[in-house]
Amino acid sequence: MHWTPSARDGAARAGSLSTDHGVVPTPAFMPVGTQATVKGLTPGELEELGVGIVLANAYHLHLRPGAELVRRRGGLHAFMGWNGPILTDSGGFQVFSLARLAEVDEEGVTFRSHLDGSLHRFTPERVMEIEAALGADIVMAFDDCAAYPCGAAEARAAMERTARWAERCAAAHGAIEAERPWPWRQRLYGIIQGSVYPELRRESARRLAGLDLPGYAIGGLSVGEEKPLMIEMLEATLPEMPADKPRYLMGVGFPEDVVAAIARGVDMFDCVAPTRQGRTGAAFTRDGRVNVENARFAEDDQPLDPECGCAVCSRWSRAYLRHLFKSGEMLGPRLLSHHNVAFLTDLVSEARAAIEAHDFERWSARWTDRYVSTPQPEVSCTI
Amino acid sequence: MHWTPSARDGAARAGSLSTDHGVVPTPAFMPVGTQATVKGLTPGELEELGVGIVLANAYHLHLRPGAELVRRRGGLHAFMGWNGPILTDSGGFQVFSLARLAEVDEEGVTFRSHLDGSLHRFTPERVMEIEAALGADIVMAFDDCAAYPCGAAEARAAMERTARWAERCAAAHGAIEAERPWPWRQRLYGIIQGSVYPELRRESARRLAGLDLPGYAIGGLSVGEEKPLMIEMLEATLPEMPADKPRYLMGVGFPEDVVAAIARGVDMFDCVAPTRQGRTGAAFTRDGRVNVENARFAEDDQPLDPECGCAVCSRWSRAYLRHLFKSGEMLGPRLLSHHNVAFLTDLVSEARAAIEAHDFERWSARWTDRYVSTPQPEVSCTI
Repeated sequence: MHWTPSARDGAARAGSLSTDHGVVPTPAFMPVGTQATVKGLTPGELEELGVGIVLANAYHLHLRPGAELVRRRGGLHAFMGWNGPILTDSGGFQVFSLARLAEVDEEGVTFRSHLDGSLHRFTPERVMEIEAALGADIVMAFDDCAAYPCGAAEARAAMERTARWAERCAAAHGAIEAERPWPWRQRLYGIIQGSVYPELRRESARRLAGLDLPGYAIGGLSVGEEKPLMIEMLEATLPEMPADKPRYLMGVGFPEDVVAAIARGVDMFDCVAPTRQGRTGAAFTRDGRVNVENARFAEDDQPLDPECGCAVCSRWSRAYLRHLFKSGEMLGPRLLSHHNVAFLTDLVSEARAAIEAHDFERWSARWTDRYVSTPQPEVSCTI
Repeated sequence: MHWTPSARDGAARAGSLSTDHGVVPTPAFMPVGTQATVKGLTPGELEELGVGIVLANAYHLHLRPGAELVRRRGGLHAFMGWNGPILTDSGGFQVFSLARLAEVDEEGVTFRSHLDGSLHRFTPERVMEIEAALGADIVMAFDDCAAYPCGAAEARAAMERTARWAERCAAAHGAIEAERPWPWRQRLYGIIQGSVYPELRRESARRLAGLDLPGYAIGGLSVGEEKPLMIEMLEATLPEMPADKPRYLMGVGFPEDVVAAIARGVDMFDCVAPTRQGRTGAAFTRDGRVNVENARFAEDDQPLDPECGCAVCSRWSRAYLRHLFKSGEMLGPRLLSHHNVAFLTDLVSEARAAIEAHDFERWSARWTDRYVSTPQPEVSCTI
């Protein structure tokens, strides 16, 4: 089995994700390494932090340095020096949100690179080739990711196209895997779409389930919609997803959202938040998010989060971290990124322990009460 | 003894520098942590690399976050999380090169901060207070660092003022040390000036030697003069410096210059080159300096320097490092800074072994021939 459940508490699940590059306990948080690097951190640090799996992005790596170049280097694992599991996103989201032009037809999408304006074409088959060349353990299907907000008719069209493209991805991926391009297995996950329409979400989940893929993701959320609407979509979608397959909520990684989604049965997360927030001086703590540049930290000798055991909290004070940011020193973004990834990794690990102890409801209520009791600035999280 | 010689080969010396935060083998290269951080690297990495001592800067830290704030944090060691020896530069060079205004009188210098234009005054006594508050193991005297180029009369005036200020620094430092503000001893080094005039250099060295300080530095070189002129000044100055005290050549850290200066009897070096060069994509290798963004590295699977044992050369290829720089990823500057500091640290360590083996002349000729056989772009090295 690719995913093996080990405990359940309400709808929350604990389990293990098996890949040929290692086993990952779930719930799992995947730091984002868009361009084959989790910004500012080495694979060695990620290992130390207990990160089990990282994400990279087919759109970005296709444009630079090129998937074939990565293949010739021995694939992403060898290229970036990370020997644990890797998941590549298909670039469906980036093609529609980041690239210029983006003309969709039934066959695929024509777009211009956000880097140099060069013209490219992605089809489900082409993206499967790109992801095969990159060589990740888990590859995401190429989806039609509708903009937000989006009318019901447009959302339905995108959802149905996503379902047809998922079939084509499955066929193309199957043909590639039959030739075993790598000494390890690559597994294809489908992506559920449907914007903020519960009926579309349910239909998308059911149609994809029919493909019997090893895992499923919920895409097109955390794209600007209100949080209660995101939760409503999760509650509509999750019951329709196969119970014996891993469930991955894409682009979600703010701590409070992770806890809310685990409560509803999500197993995997990714988000740029820990590193992006870290680069701007924002740190997650058990008492909420703080900005280290705040004047009140100028002479504060405490670690960022006194309960955190990460290398940053073990060695440096808020006063020093504030000094690094005020001075524009690159060690600041590096250390805050490190701490924030540690925070998310610890969070899912604590959640897992609570599920195993059948104490998830009490744990999550306490955790959330404490975390949200501090007012926090508005932020958004997209790649 | 603060410095104990252990071997000599021609004019080149090997020895040990003893401080209350540890013993440093010499010749030693000190990475520059201007703002209480060696840019991009943690103290843990520096330790791993075998760095024995780091430098910080009184001018910068006085302006931000303030020396008294650092003192209240327990001093620089506690603040930056580095428990090895630290040397603080006095800011003499920065006051004249970086600050605005800079009006010199016999008592001191009035200048405006390069950060916010605020007005400040440095005197020898004030700088001794600032360096005492920062709490380094070695503190540099406050000097009058003449601009380059500079006429003989102006150079003489600055050299003589530097000598008078060194006396005042010694008196002020002695009074502070008598009160033992820290559980460790702080040692004052004098700075030899004299621009590019051999007679002034010799006179400066002799006058400072009379103060019987525990160490002496050669300042005001590597400020834009031609390399042969720098070597000529070293050859004029070094014989006049006490043979039983450590000799520190300030601001020099390009590998070929370090080797040339060790040959003439220098024991300590500092330079921003390894980190500054690293941030722009330039890497030191045994075959000369290379820029990793060069197209010829696009598919090069070799490490930066195949003979280097650093963590970067052990794990990543030139192709990957090039990708990081081409993609503007912050891991690139971090990894190249790491490698370049490793390179300088290994270089002085190899030089020391050659001195101990009485093989320095042969080793340095071979090393330099190989290093300079690759043409290298022009660069300068100042803080």
